[in-house]
Amino acid sequence: MKNYEALLNLFSEHLEKYRSQLSAKQPKELYEPENYILSLGGKRLRPLLCLIACDLFDKDPKRALDSALSVELFHNFTLIHDDILDNAPMRRNQPTVHTKWNINIGILSGDVMMAKAYDILNRYNATQLKSLLNIMLATSIEVCEGQQMDMNFEKSKSVTVSEYKQMITFKTAVLLGCSLKMGAINADASEEDAEHLFEFGKHLGIAFQLNDDMLDAYSANEKFGKQVGGDILANKKTFLIVKAFELANASQKQKLESYLNLTSMKGLEKISGTLELFKELNIKTLAQNEADSHTKEAISHLKLVNANHHKIKQLEELATTLLTRDI
Amino acid sequence: MKNYEALLNLFSEHLEKYRSQLSAKQPKELYEPENYILSLGGKRLRPLLCLIACDLFDKDPKRALDSALSVELFHNFTLIHDDILDNAPMRRNQPTVHTKWNINIGILSGDVMMAKAYDILNRYNATQLKSLLNIMLATSIEVCEGQQMDMNFEKSKSVTVSEYKQMITFKTAVLLGCSLKMGAINADASEEDAEHLFEFGKHLGIAFQLNDDMLDAYSANEKFGKQVGGDILANKKTFLIVKAFELANASQKQKLESYLNLTSMKGLEKISGTLELFKELNIKTLAQNEADSHTKEAISHLKLVNANHHKIKQLEELATTLLTRDI
Repeated sequence: MKNYEALLNLFSEHLEKYRSQLSAKQPKELYEPENYILSLGGKRLRPLLCLIACDLFDKDPKRALDSALSVELFHNFTLIHDDILDNAPMRRNQPTVHTKWNINIGILSGDVMMAKAYDILNRYNATQLKSLLNIMLATSIEVCEGQQMDMNFEKSKSVTVSEYKQMITFKTAVLLGCSLKMGAINADASEEDAEHLFEFGKHLGIAFQLNDDMLDAYSANEKFGKQVGGDILANKKTFLIVKAFELANASQKQKLESYLNLTSMKGLEKISGTLELFKELNIKTLAQNEADSHTKEAISHLKLVNANHHKIKQLEELATTLLTRDI
Repeated sequence: MKNYEALLNLFSEHLEKYRSQLSAKQPKELYEPENYILSLGGKRLRPLLCLIACDLFDKDPKRALDSALSVELFHNFTLIHDDILDNAPMRRNQPTVHTKWNINIGILSGDVMMAKAYDILNRYNATQLKSLLNIMLATSIEVCEGQQMDMNFEKSKSVTVSEYKQMITFKTAVLLGCSLKMGAINADASEEDAEHLFEFGKHLGIAFQLNDDMLDAYSANEKFGKQVGGDILANKKTFLIVKAFELANASQKQKLESYLNLTSMKGLEKISGTLELFKELNIKTLAQNEADSHTKEAISHLKLVNANHHKIKQLEELATTLLTRDI
């Protein structure tokens, strides 16, 4: 997808320019971690979606560069704080910020990064700024709420499918929707078009997360790079386990619970036993259906956007490509 | 100061309305801490300054209520995070948020509170929002920088007076300036008047902090409520100790260092020895002169503001009153 490569390069240049300014800033304990986490790479999916959305309306995607930078800074701020919350030592094969420095520096450099994510939007004129902030701040608050829900779920025995979907919507999906909507705002798109793009991104995000849940349990090869069944091993709440508990009869529920209580010492038994129950309950198909239904919903919103048809088609293809990693 | 009481009541009502909405919000782990820290009281100096600034131009102070709420939320967010950074168990005789709940909840409820501080400003029209955010975000970033400098100073042996003043300017003073400037913006004051009010608040804030440093060492009675010499005991960097190191000759420096190295077991000796050296070096007078010079600078900016003369006089009196707590 050649056009998208150009957009990604455009963003990379913009990000590098921003990063080069960071290296001179004091106190360095605050800005080195920001520079570091931005150097760890990642797909830059959010800024890409932001530029794509602006380009969709045949407006210069450069208009959306600061919005794209804003969402990428916000996303990376959440990574720094989430890694502290999750006690995660590594990210993308490198030490997390609080491991490389310390928790205090992780908290404070995250805080300043969040403020800078909004500050960058002040480069836009007053009218655009108001629209951009409106969606950006509502999204920020939901992302925090989603993260708290996720932490609550760790301790909760009875999470419903609806609660789980609400959590992934807030924690992951709305920021994809927000990225697209901001790009649309930069293109002076109508409120309606911007909202359809938000919904497209949101449902796509939900489908992505459901896909991730499936990949963790069913990835048959090395492509995905993670241990198969890692979520099961870690007793992580996923669509699969939540749905399984919802559908299980008394004896199946008892079995699921007994696998949950197995320590990782009995890892293989824990994983294979849980997968066996998923099979009995037809969970893989149900998860796939759920993901498909959100993909469909996403595409239906995309098709309602009044923009360059060719580019809309291309975006639909991107969405499908991202969703068809081998399971 | 009757008029100020009315403004404080106006803000209290606004804050209570906001807090009552909080109690229904989910997930409660995120909003109970916010409600709790807002319930701990405090002087509400920042929101008061915000309303005063608006009122100064004979505009309805209600215009500034959301700005006042925004700065108070931001200030309380910094308290939650700073208490984690400082490992502080208590605030205003109550457990701190991370003590009452846990560090993760402290981090995340602080994050959402920061986002809400900005989100509230979105209630203003686009032009005001842009001006409000401009000062609010620049200030937020400086407050984080000031906190990081303060943390760095704990480990640093050689802090200069100029670095110390930069730190208190960022950590404490700019938010007072920001509060006043936001109120002025809400009153549609000129950029020049708003900037003079910012400078008034900033220099007042520096004078406040220098005063606090002096009160800690020289408060002769119980009025101030803290242990006399607490900062000396805790090896905290204050104007007094930083200035003393700057002026001390080799032998005085050696003595100061030996007191710094005394444990709190030898608390009385540590405090009286340090105070003795402060006396030799005339530190109390130098600190008072420094504070006076910032108060003078503050008042000179206030006098340049084109607003209701009577109200400006009243604000000057408030500043003087706040600065003449018994030493």
